Amino acid sequence: MPTSPLRPVAEARQAILARLSPMPVEQVSLAEAFGRILAADLPASLSHPAAAVSAMDGWAVRAGDVASLPALLPIAGESGAGHPYPARLPDGQAVRIFTGALLPEGADTIIIQEEAEKQGSGKVLIQKKTPAGRYIRPAGMDFTAGDRLLAKGERLGARHIALVALGGLSQLPVYQKPRLAILTSGDELVPPGQTPGPGQLINSNSLLLELLARDAGAEPVNLGILPDRAGALGERLGRAEKPDMIVTTGGASVGDHDHIVSDLKANPNASLDFWKIAMRPGKPLIFGHWHGIPLLGLPGNPVSAAVCAFNFLLPALAALQDTRLDWPVTHARLATPLPENDQREDYIRARLARDEAGGWIAHPASQQDSAMLKTLVEADGFIIRPPHAAACHTGSEVPVLRLPDGF
Amino acid sequence: MPTSPLRPVAEARQAILARLSPMPVEQVSLAEAFGRILAADLPASLSHPAAAVSAMDGWAVRAGDVASLPALLPIAGESGAGHPYPARLPDGQAVRIFTGALLPEGADTIIIQEEAEKQGSGKVLIQKKTPAGRYIRPAGMDFTAGDRLLAKGERLGARHIALVALGGLSQLPVYQKPRLAILTSGDELVPPGQTPGPGQLINSNSLLLELLARDAGAEPVNLGILPDRAGALGERLGRAEKPDMIVTTGGASVGDHDHIVSDLKANPNASLDFWKIAMRPGKPLIFGHWHGIPLLGLPGNPVSAAVCAFNFLLPALAALQDTRLDWPVTHARLATPLPENDQREDYIRARLARDEAGGWIAHPASQQDSAMLKTLVEADGFIIRPPHAAACHTGSEVPVLRLPDGF
Repeated sequence: MPTSPLRPVAEARQAILARLSPMPVEQVSLAEAFGRILAADLPASLSHPAAAVSAMDGWAVRAGDVASLPALLPIAGESGAGHPYPARLPDGQAVRIFTGALLPEGADTIIIQEEAEKQGSGKVLIQKKTPAGRYIRPAGMDFTAGDRLLAKGERLGARHIALVALGGLSQLPVYQKPRLAILTSGDELVPPGQTPGPGQLINSNSLLLELLARDAGAEPVNLGILPDRAGALGERLGRAEKPDMIVTTGGASVGDHDHIVSDLKANPNASLDFWKIAMRPGKPLIFGHWHGIPLLGLPGNPVSAAVCAFNFLLPALAALQDTRLDWPVTHARLATPLPENDQREDYIRARLARDEAGGWIAHPASQQDSAMLKTLVEADGFIIRPPHAAACHTGSEVPVLRLPDGF
Repeated sequence: MPTSPLRPVAEARQAILARLSPMPVEQVSLAEAFGRILAADLPASLSHPAAAVSAMDGWAVRAGDVASLPALLPIAGESGAGHPYPARLPDGQAVRIFTGALLPEGADTIIIQEEAEKQGSGKVLIQKKTPAGRYIRPAGMDFTAGDRLLAKGERLGARHIALVALGGLSQLPVYQKPRLAILTSGDELVPPGQTPGPGQLINSNSLLLELLARDAGAEPVNLGILPDRAGALGERLGRAEKPDMIVTTGGASVGDHDHIVSDLKANPNASLDFWKIAMRPGKPLIFGHWHGIPLLGLPGNPVSAAVCAFNFLLPALAALQDTRLDWPVTHARLATPLPENDQREDYIRARLARDEAGGWIAHPASQQDSAMLKTLVEADGFIIRPPHAAACHTGSEVPVLRLPDGF
């Protein structure tokens, strides 16, 4: 039996990411930018507020005019939100003002309405001392035109886009969505919705990858099921529009019917970089290029495909958008013992529960076969077992990679 | 000054949620179900695997035929994935088999290819002992037809939908997307993309709510900016298609130009339930009904609107889909002291950083004005300060509500 050294997971991922370049930048509308990665620092076009405004409903005055109390000031007019007082505040007078309304020129202090009394005579009576400058939002308090609102690399959530709108921008530079071609290999596969015959299986992998890719900001193109036949990969890809990346599942092993590896080896315009990873599930993994397009080949078993997508595809799609993923790690105590590990980094499907003290308990699924998708669906994360890890007793602390939303 | 008791945040939220009913259920395709909430328990239509298959490339044999070694078995034929061996395994023979291929009737054990040697004579030589039943995935190992694949209330990620596909289903019952009408009130507001004049401000709230609502599984309908005029709310809503919920920002206070409250009070088909919450930012909050449709009225300042959306709108949209949100809480130590709190629960924008020991340090923003959206964008979460909390020293532990992805 020939043996070849297995490549550590982190090293393999790093080698893949090093071969990927960020997508070109495009300008999109604010609404389209949601969830995308900002491709440049973004300066504000406008200041917020553009000019000093009142933070409260009340009366705009000069601090000097209310220095000695009581003060009875004639009411010069009103400044409402969107309806500014049209002139300079006359000396010794007050302007009725509302939250968000422009502070009249000359005014420097707000008396809130609860601390003033409007008189029938068209005057307002102020009896309580108010510090100068109170309840005024000065121009640029939030930000000033030219200030950096957001930094390159920011993932744009609702509040980021609202800030950009407030700063006077209506377009944003983001990385183009990488187009991901998805191919599944296997004569046994039929598409979802079709009833499988004897020995046939529904292809769940393409749908899994399609949904994961879209959620990761990519544009999936499902190229369907490849027959187990030499040359099928190139024929199918040759007919499709050129994608930015290719992902396959199945056909990644060394069996007589596994053609992804042999097709890449046989094609002068393709390259194959490595395909054995020290991980479980998922030892056979392909990374290569087809006509210059990066190709990631995942194993065909549903759980292996999902774990390899988690470990390699999602970080790759992030790298194409010039960002990186950091899965949250929870430290938990084992509910059941785990045996000594071999040379492969083990991704053990586990549920998490709280113990009485509020700590986390990890319950590994009793069976970890890579064809058992239901245990992955029931899992909250993967207990990570390093290569050659010693046996762990019940209660030992283990790191658990949490499955992200949408996974 | 009249004072009225303020309603605690959790009590107000509970009162809102108690008034909401889940949306009707609809059947959608697998791809459309992504991110939605499952509205019923889901049994599998098919078993997986449907029949016993090989977990490895190798040879399918009867355990009895390899009990005494070495064994030299004639090769009866081949079982490939999607190409089953068409007959019963003849006694004393072996079938070449590949991963995922149907186990021939009569076979009960797989000899992996690394442990067998194909002879030129059309026979295979087995010299190593293999336990009976090895490397076979029995029918239904993952799940059996009729097994519950997913439980009602599950949020459907990629792996959930892949499982459902594998189980032979092509449609899923989910809650209809609630249609959320969004209205912003204020004469000072202009839509994003328009240059504001003196005293005008860009309306960032509608966009914020639109993006948050879509991300929360709702269908936002932006009804634009309402003028500060009595009756404007009803006129605008009367012209729109009937939504499932209404959210407004601005006009929620008691100023002369705040018409949302007065419009609800004046309309015989509307009701107003309460509108003063013990929270900061965001004291004025409306909950009511307009022609039987729940209406949530948020304050107009960008940060107040966002914090109230976080506290009330997102849980309400979840409730309309029969689910609840639990924001993750991180316990962090304060980087700077905080003063004693008054009667309002305080939502203090803060950044989180790791200390040398890997613990969390919370850095509250130095200014917390509710018009400062940039500090919200820079925040990782809210330090929650209960009403009447005592002053906190640097290093005190405080709970921090983490801002969710997409917020």
